[in-house]
Amino acid sequence: MKVVIAGLGTVGRGLLKALSKKKSELWRAYEFSPKVVAAVKSDGAFLDENGLDPASVVSSLDGRGYEEHSAWVSGYTALEAIRDLDFDVLVEATPTNVESGEPGLSHILTALEREKDIVTSNKGPLVIAFEKLMEAARERGRILRYEATVGGAMPVFSLVEKCLRGNKITAIKGILNGTTNYILTRMTYERVPFDIALKEAQELGYAEANPSFDIEGIDAACKLVILANAIMGIRAKLSDVEIVGITRITPEAIELAREDGYLIKHVAQIEEGVLEVSLRLVDEKSPLAVGGTLNVVSVSTDLAGEFTVIGRGAGEETVSAVLNDLIDIWLERRRALAR
Amino acid sequence: MKVVIAGLGTVGRGLLKALSKKKSELWRAYEFSPKVVAAVKSDGAFLDENGLDPASVVSSLDGRGYEEHSAWVSGYTALEAIRDLDFDVLVEATPTNVESGEPGLSHILTALEREKDIVTSNKGPLVIAFEKLMEAARERGRILRYEATVGGAMPVFSLVEKCLRGNKITAIKGILNGTTNYILTRMTYERVPFDIALKEAQELGYAEANPSFDIEGIDAACKLVILANAIMGIRAKLSDVEIVGITRITPEAIELAREDGYLIKHVAQIEEGVLEVSLRLVDEKSPLAVGGTLNVVSVSTDLAGEFTVIGRGAGEETVSAVLNDLIDIWLERRRALAR
Repeated sequence: MKVVIAGLGTVGRGLLKALSKKKSELWRAYEFSPKVVAAVKSDGAFLDENGLDPASVVSSLDGRGYEEHSAWVSGYTALEAIRDLDFDVLVEATPTNVESGEPGLSHILTALEREKDIVTSNKGPLVIAFEKLMEAARERGRILRYEATVGGAMPVFSLVEKCLRGNKITAIKGILNGTTNYILTRMTYERVPFDIALKEAQELGYAEANPSFDIEGIDAACKLVILANAIMGIRAKLSDVEIVGITRITPEAIELAREDGYLIKHVAQIEEGVLEVSLRLVDEKSPLAVGGTLNVVSVSTDLAGEFTVIGRGAGEETVSAVLNDLIDIWLERRRALAR
Repeated sequence: MKVVIAGLGTVGRGLLKALSKKKSELWRAYEFSPKVVAAVKSDGAFLDENGLDPASVVSSLDGRGYEEHSAWVSGYTALEAIRDLDFDVLVEATPTNVESGEPGLSHILTALEREKDIVTSNKGPLVIAFEKLMEAARERGRILRYEATVGGAMPVFSLVEKCLRGNKITAIKGILNGTTNYILTRMTYERVPFDIALKEAQELGYAEANPSFDIEGIDAACKLVILANAIMGIRAKLSDVEIVGITRITPEAIELAREDGYLIKHVAQIEEGVLEVSLRLVDEKSPLAVGGTLNVVSVSTDLAGEFTVIGRGAGEETVSAVLNDLIDIWLERRRALAR
């Protein structure tokens, strides 16, 4: 199976690392031995039609001398790779843009036109054009997987699809952004004011220099849109989500809630077709009462009752979701792609 | 696909209900239309080689007039059904016996000898003879699934197998018994003494008249043995588990822990090959800090970090796990079993 990786941030680089480190295990467990024929950054690409050595790409990236790598082609773009190379699966891991979905959206559509399967960790294209992408994949008989887009390492979509067969999902509730959960946790347990907690989150690398995407609830709302479309068949857009951020919360309100056995959490939920991201009281005994940067997703089902998953919502752990998607495609296509 | 259901307690009866209620959905989603050719109780069986009407069996069981049902054969046993009938999958849902594994063990072994696939919700056979059963299934090329045996409705095994591909599981920690979690939760938040909390649990139907299987930690240890064998490849037996029950805990100890931000929980864990069920301090912000009758399983993985699932550990929700296993077998075998 030949793979193009577009984007060499945490996820793209982490995937190369995992493929290198787990080479023999992946072969033993699944006879899975992908060839990465292109690994593309914003300023160029590592190219090898016989398959790159992932370890050497990672170490040259870590060492900052990547332009010296023998496979490096300066200025070569992901779109060129997707248009011109011989490959089977695109891993789309470029940065999220929820206004245009680009460049991920064009990457995915172009790859689908060329009848390639897709694994994306990039939310942008799905938030902008979920239905269009699924339709394009269906038309071409391609697999489009996106486990990493919501909840990072937590396998929410494959869990519902493969482990809760026969269940109807009636509602979803979750904490979908680790930065805001970190801030609220600090405010709750250490009585730190909002501004200080935010500054800490930035210093620890959880929050961006411009944190509004997180603290205004946009990131959580994007993930909710994907959950609504993928799991509940609701054709929602970002503009359909009622969003309240966490900026106006005070330590006093948190303290008052706590005295009654409640926490204030930034909860994203889908209930009776309504999508909302807002501050809510959560019982301290509830599965949603999880602290730190953790993410949580609770699904209400008709057979299994309420079922909750908790895990790392961001960072290098997200590679787990991308790798699981990639192996899934391999297992589905192995007869055709055994090369 | 022809199914024999052995055992018509909560799970067996719940499965019949779900098959009846979800008939058209299961067909639409998976073209799955199983025929239940036998549904066996301890005193007889409902038999129909063309497939029973599940709804009529359930309503005659609920109405206590089941001996009048036209398909009822008094005295007919599960072993007879497994030996003599034409079927494809055995659903083994008889009561758990962790001393002999019987009658479930003989049911499963006999069915495997006849080259049938198996779904079991009965822990007993797996606790007694995990390796032997897996080996027997492998030899005959059969599928043996057991999602319902640990964590009730929580899909722990399929989750690890299908949603965390490529991950190595390095440790497991969980709350595997809802009764003890209920008792500890009542003691923690309502300061109810142990005896009273136990009595409440019995009155609510969570605990048996003889509650020692739960409160001494045996039930949790059995589940831990299955997790160790199935997920971590540790060939552990029940006698390998260090077990401490919850009977000696006092409200004072719970109160002291709580003042420092900790809860006392009955935790089952596998770490560095050691299996333990014991009382532990759990941070109130931790995913294990879940109250009521809920079950929790946290797996530590090399790629995805720590990942936790929380759900209904017992009761009718368990049917979800059995149904998922059954559909999985159908999807795997559909070409052969399309009848």
